[in-house]
Amino acid sequence: MLPLHSHPSGRHFLQIPGPTNVPDRVLRAIDNPTIDHRGPEFGELGKAVLAGMKKVFKTESDVIIYPASGTGSWEAALVNTMSPGDKVLMAETGHFATLWKKVAERLKLRVEFQEGDWRHGADPEQIGKRLAADTGHEIKAVCVVHNETATGVVSDVAAVRKAIDDANHPALLMVDTISSLASIDYRHDEWGVDVTVAGSQKGLMLPAGLSFNAISAKALKASETAALLRSYWDWKEMLAINPSGYFPYTPATNLLYGLYEALQMLFAEGLENVFARHKRHGEATRRAVHAWGLEILCRKPEEYSPALTAVMMPEGHSADAFRKTVLTHFNMSLGQGLSKVSDKIFRIGHLGDFNDLTLCGTLSGVEMGLSKAGVPHKPGGVQAALDYLSQTCKAYPS
Amino acid sequence: MLPLHSHPSGRHFLQIPGPTNVPDRVLRAIDNPTIDHRGPEFGELGKAVLAGMKKVFKTESDVIIYPASGTGSWEAALVNTMSPGDKVLMAETGHFATLWKKVAERLKLRVEFQEGDWRHGADPEQIGKRLAADTGHEIKAVCVVHNETATGVVSDVAAVRKAIDDANHPALLMVDTISSLASIDYRHDEWGVDVTVAGSQKGLMLPAGLSFNAISAKALKASETAALLRSYWDWKEMLAINPSGYFPYTPATNLLYGLYEALQMLFAEGLENVFARHKRHGEATRRAVHAWGLEILCRKPEEYSPALTAVMMPEGHSADAFRKTVLTHFNMSLGQGLSKVSDKIFRIGHLGDFNDLTLCGTLSGVEMGLSKAGVPHKPGGVQAALDYLSQTCKAYPS
Amino acid sequence: MLPLHSHPSGRHFLQIPGPTNVPDRVLRAIDNPTIDHRGPEFGELGKAVLAGMKKVFKTESDVIIYPASGTGSWEAALVNTMSPGDKVLMAETGHFATLWKKVAERLKLRVEFQEGDWRHGADPEQIGKRLAADTGHEIKAVCVVHNETATGVVSDVAAVRKAIDDANHPALLMVDTISSLASIDYRHDEWGVDVTVAGSQKGLMLPAGLSFNAISAKALKASETAALLRSYWDWKEMLAINPSGYFPYTPATNLLYGLYEALQMLFAEGLENVFARHKRHGEATRRAVHAWGLEILCRKPEEYSPALTAVMMPEGHSADAFRKTVLTHFNMSLGQGLSKVSDKIFRIGHLGDFNDLTLCGTLSGVEMGLSKAGVPHKPGGVQAALDYLSQTCKAYPS
Amino acid sequence: MLPLHSHPSGRHFLQIPGPTNVPDRVLRAIDNPTIDHRGPEFGELGKAVLAGMKKVFKTESDVIIYPASGTGSWEAALVNTMSPGDKVLMAETGHFATLWKKVAERLKLRVEFQEGDWRHGADPEQIGKRLAADTGHEIKAVCVVHNETATGVVSDVAAVRKAIDDANHPALLMVDTISSLASIDYRHDEWGVDVTVAGSQKGLMLPAGLSFNAISAKALKASETAALLRSYWDWKEMLAINPSGYFPYTPATNLLYGLYEALQMLFAEGLENVFARHKRHGEATRRAVHAWGLEILCRKPEEYSPALTAVMMPEGHSADAFRKTVLTHFNMSLGQGLSKVSDKIFRIGHLGDFNDLTLCGTLSGVEMGLSKAGVPHKPGGVQAALDYLSQTCKAYPS
Repeated sequence: MLPLHSHPSGRHFLQIPGPTNVPDRVLRAIDNPTIDHRGPEFGELGKAVLAGMKKVFKTESDVIIYPASGTGSWEAALVNTMSPGDKVLMAETGHFATLWKKVAERLKLRVEFQEGDWRHGADPEQIGKRLAADTGHEIKAVCVVHNETATGVVSDVAAVRKAIDDANHPALLMVDTISSLASIDYRHDEWGVDVTVAGSQKGLMLPAGLSFNAISAKALKASETAALLRSYWDWKEMLAINPSGYFPYTPATNLLYGLYEALQMLFAEGLENVFARHKRHGEATRRAVHAWGLEILCRKPEEYSPALTAVMMPEGHSADAFRKTVLTHFNMSLGQGLSKVSDKIFRIGHLGDFNDLTLCGTLSGVEMGLSKAGVPHKPGGVQAALDYLSQTCKAYPS
Repeated sequence: MLPLHSHPSGRHFLQIPGPTNVPDRVLRAIDNPTIDHRGPEFGELGKAVLAGMKKVFKTESDVIIYPASGTGSWEAALVNTMSPGDKVLMAETGHFATLWKKVAERLKLRVEFQEGDWRHGADPEQIGKRLAADTGHEIKAVCVVHNETATGVVSDVAAVRKAIDDANHPALLMVDTISSLASIDYRHDEWGVDVTVAGSQKGLMLPAGLSFNAISAKALKASETAALLRSYWDWKEMLAINPSGYFPYTPATNLLYGLYEALQMLFAEGLENVFARHKRHGEATRRAVHAWGLEILCRKPEEYSPALTAVMMPEGHSADAFRKTVLTHFNMSLGQGLSKVSDKIFRIGHLGDFNDLTLCGTLSGVEMGLSKAGVPHKPGGVQAALDYLSQTCKAYPS
Repeated sequence: MLPLHSHPSGRHFLQIPGPTNVPDRVLRAIDNPTIDHRGPEFGELGKAVLAGMKKVFKTESDVIIYPASGTGSWEAALVNTMSPGDKVLMAETGHFATLWKKVAERLKLRVEFQEGDWRHGADPEQIGKRLAADTGHEIKAVCVVHNETATGVVSDVAAVRKAIDDANHPALLMVDTISSLASIDYRHDEWGVDVTVAGSQKGLMLPAGLSFNAISAKALKASETAALLRSYWDWKEMLAINPSGYFPYTPATNLLYGLYEALQMLFAEGLENVFARHKRHGEATRRAVHAWGLEILCRKPEEYSPALTAVMMPEGHSADAFRKTVLTHFNMSLGQGLSKVSDKIFRIGHLGDFNDLTLCGTLSGVEMGLSKAGVPHKPGGVQAALDYLSQTCKAYPS
Repeated sequence: MLPLHSHPSGRHFLQIPGPTNVPDRVLRAIDNPTIDHRGPEFGELGKAVLAGMKKVFKTESDVIIYPASGTGSWEAALVNTMSPGDKVLMAETGHFATLWKKVAERLKLRVEFQEGDWRHGADPEQIGKRLAADTGHEIKAVCVVHNETATGVVSDVAAVRKAIDDANHPALLMVDTISSLASIDYRHDEWGVDVTVAGSQKGLMLPAGLSFNAISAKALKASETAALLRSYWDWKEMLAINPSGYFPYTPATNLLYGLYEALQMLFAEGLENVFARHKRHGEATRRAVHAWGLEILCRKPEEYSPALTAVMMPEGHSADAFRKTVLTHFNMSLGQGLSKVSDKIFRIGHLGDFNDLTLCGTLSGVEMGLSKAGVPHKPGGVQAALDYLSQTCKAYPS
């Protein structure tokens, strides 16, 4: 038997900011027998998930699905569009922006990293200035993380686009939506994004194992001359065969079953309702955090993440010790602080397949954990969330 | 597709007092391919679940497993031990005691029903008096519901046994443990119960579809002369073949897979830990109810149920309207008031595969539902539960 | 882990004549979380499965669904319509007819059992004669097994009806379709059946645990005065609440999920196509048996069962030793000979969720088992089946 | 609902040479809730699957697990060990060897491709000669496909190793075992392989989505100076964190559950028994093909694949038309001819979770399909397989 059952009873609360709680419908879909990936049924499946993902990205152009973790789609975005030694401008919003930078560096790109304090989103003004100064158009791409999973800070992608346009700069705009897609409003076409990077295990409510690129015509054109070597991540072969619903190499069929089901669920709820749900849960969470007298890592209210909330530990207290208390006493996994903020923050995931009562359970686990771990705080966080949620709740349409 | 998905996101909170939330491990076990019920593998399965159920009943004697709903095991207890016109003494603890009485009446037994107010358990003193008066030993059985699912009141089975013994009365003692078995401490042998009645869909964490009789030697003896007609429910053929692990007619194999898995889970946690968990959750729930200023249906603290809590609605408010608000706004099912207390109470199930955070989510749903439905109450119920739970929580052994 | 994995690789061939191989779609449906059996979603489910079962029985009148094994529906048919001491006429077609008789006897009915040799169906002529002689209308019911699972012989229900009508006899006609429903053409209304008895684990492709009664108006009327005691099996309360999609006691919700899915599958294939498929597989199986030079238990070709084929072992050879060889060497379960024909026959189930290649695998296992076990036979059985199947196969509609 | 149900009844026969039929145990394992990939339970899972995979590769050194399709592990083998412009010697055994060559070319390696006729394995003698001639040691690696999935031809890896050694050549030996691992005996350490490439969807009985590299100390050393760019595929970070059971980026947790279960199944059966099973099924299949009078693509008996058999169509007949007939009439998917042999061959997969009767069903589908499609052949193929299988079968140990 799998070593998955160390907790004695009840459902585990998986409240890291992804992988998220996979709904039963999606797990059951994944559990269907594998079919011939070159047979007629598969083509229908392939076409359906590719079409569905376009709706999720809000794009009319192409979407690529990789059998890979989200990390692979960072690499895919770069190797399809860049050449060795190309300069890219990246914004240091947190750990994941830093990891993406590391990928770029390993691919021998020259990265200009706009420093950040991990408490703010990418700064469109600063980006605009840098591009305006780049009169030789040495910078080939601007890379931004939409929702920084490590900090709970959302960057304003439309504003970054505007900054690029205002600078009349031809750089491609690449955006990581790994922890925002299907949780936070995102518009690949309207915002003029050239490559959007995404993964399956957050708002798409799947296990990890699929990742995505959404591609603009401009990015596609760039790929024709991009000299970085690529094979697995190459868009060209994918795009050649995808219109028929097939893939150039063996796809992760069972995860595609899950994707099909997840898309049905998202469209049944309605993407705008999904976004509103996440915003409301983010607000409820922050009200709890404020009531506890704790500080939210994200500095600016307009950059608060609807997908997760990173909370700062009071000076002298270990976030990891607190998380361990919560895990061992209350059967809940919270996200840890990564790298620069290791042991200094914990992260509450409130994204994916989620609802009011599960959020209340989650916040209860945090509040009781704070007490149990002896972390100074005021009670009343859960109460604050309850007040807000009950004031703003709506009946489900029947 | 099944019409099961009317709620837009997140896991449904099934907080009726049974059927309870079936754990994933049990659902996956049930999902295994059916095997030959006369083949060698089945015999192993049959022996394992029969042996496991004896541990759960705390009995050394026999256990019968029926492919049937719990209602069937009420009938089984009676038809195997009684003859037409036999008198049985039953205690009116609530709706389910009343239904059992109805079964007895349909079987043409003469039922003496000790009236109750649905707010107390069976009264051992009153039972003792009645038996003492029954010098002709006309009463053949005393029937008591251990945990009245309709009211959240626990009867003291050991005290009833003592009352029978003190009266030197030969009546059989029959006990319904449908909503207590594997949730509340129960001891078939030690308490001298003759027939214990149980079902799969509560503390055993299975879907409905299996039911049980545990039988004393005295009950078995009674069955030799009992004249009520029986075939499906007949113990004799069951007992003849069960030692080999097989059944006289086609068993519900896939539910038995689930039973096997559920037993592993219960024994891994430890039955005494399971009981302690339910008691603690019952206490937390009652602290919430008291903080809201609402009244608990059960009158006597020593009879409070660890499995569910029935809450009285303030005069002039509809419990069913409240429950509907909770369902449509918070994706939670609460138990309704049945029969005499219809629309006057609602029931919170806190039994089965359950933990602290799910309880907090449950109580949050009640508190928010009270607000939303305009039911007069004081806030702070969830807070009271949190305080109690965090003071009494323990780390899981690793 | 469940003790279900004694065979080292590949899928087990469960070719007993039921429980049959449960399709993945049905297992996955059963694996869904349990819902509130009194909530709004349940009502939709209940109405859907009740309506679907009417189509399967080909009846406009009522269908009852019990959380019980098929054995229970035999009892239900009798206790709802008969009074103690009533006389019923039953036809001895085999082991299951004999078991039904045993049920009737336990219920203190007087059974007149028309003797049979277990190689023929019920004899309409003999039934007609007996009824004609029963001028006092002492016989209250005629009970026939449509497809005798123990022998692979089909009785002509329409002819039995005609015999009753020709005798102008008011006896009810009760038919057991446990191993025929949804495999062999059956027409409750057109054939004038009063009570049809069925179970979930054969043609309905479910695990055991649900059973059924389809009821004529005449049977319903009979139930008003029938004096046998009943509670669990009582039609009345069921019929009172079923129109709303609910049940009077806790239903086996998860098995009902499976029933819903199975009905979708049957209707998608088309009931008439399902029946044709079973007939064709029966014919292919018999061609194999004949090619092996073995004898089929069923004497008359017009009574051959499309659901299973019972094969006689050559004198001096043990059918059970042969079956054990097949199980241990070829990972296939065949049906045993029961009671009178114990160790003398084996039964090949070819019903339920089944197709040509699985039948070929099944017959291959029989042919290889005959060789391995040293049972005298001619080779070529599988070849005979292949020839027939390839001549008669059709493309699936796309 | 998923568009997976175009066939009306029974289980689909997925007899392409991979993805193979995923056993129910593995599908159910994958269907478990996702856990925190940084939590304590995950570490146990990670360590268990990494240790298990070493046993499967028969290696004491390192194994890498990628969340990727098998194609990715080809790329991983090259980018971790080679530098731009390095020369590699590859053997053209068929379509997949050619695809691996294409990957190498895209990575700007200079590929020397030893031509083949797609009917033989790699030629150790020819490889040895070429290496002997390469006195400057320009060739950095020899790449061989162990079991060419496109042709059903096995290359002698130990002989290739000996050829390299005899030539005293320092080239790395890289072997693709995508369709042989856990089906055909393979010994990473004993055969002196430097990088073994594998995938999840064949002998490992999982859906596609995981791929593997097994690495020798020599390969690891080569990776220190290899200059090809890499990030996702980089061994270094993997090896740094794997000993704790964790991964540097989000792993495909649910597929790892499946891997854990598949490993339990393989070890329970015994790897050597697994290999023997595949050899026996290969022999039975070839006897059928020969009896039909058809030609096997593989020329040399000592190179016959135990995992699949590629069959040549008689001149003037379309293999794809035949496969379509089999799919639409008999609900079985066979493998198509790829590239050079497109429409000229069909492939019968007999690997993975498989047994005698499923093989008989498979061969029956081929024989009936040949008849139905009007392909000239002699009958008796299935009979030949039956004869061989029944002579060589053994009882399962109980």
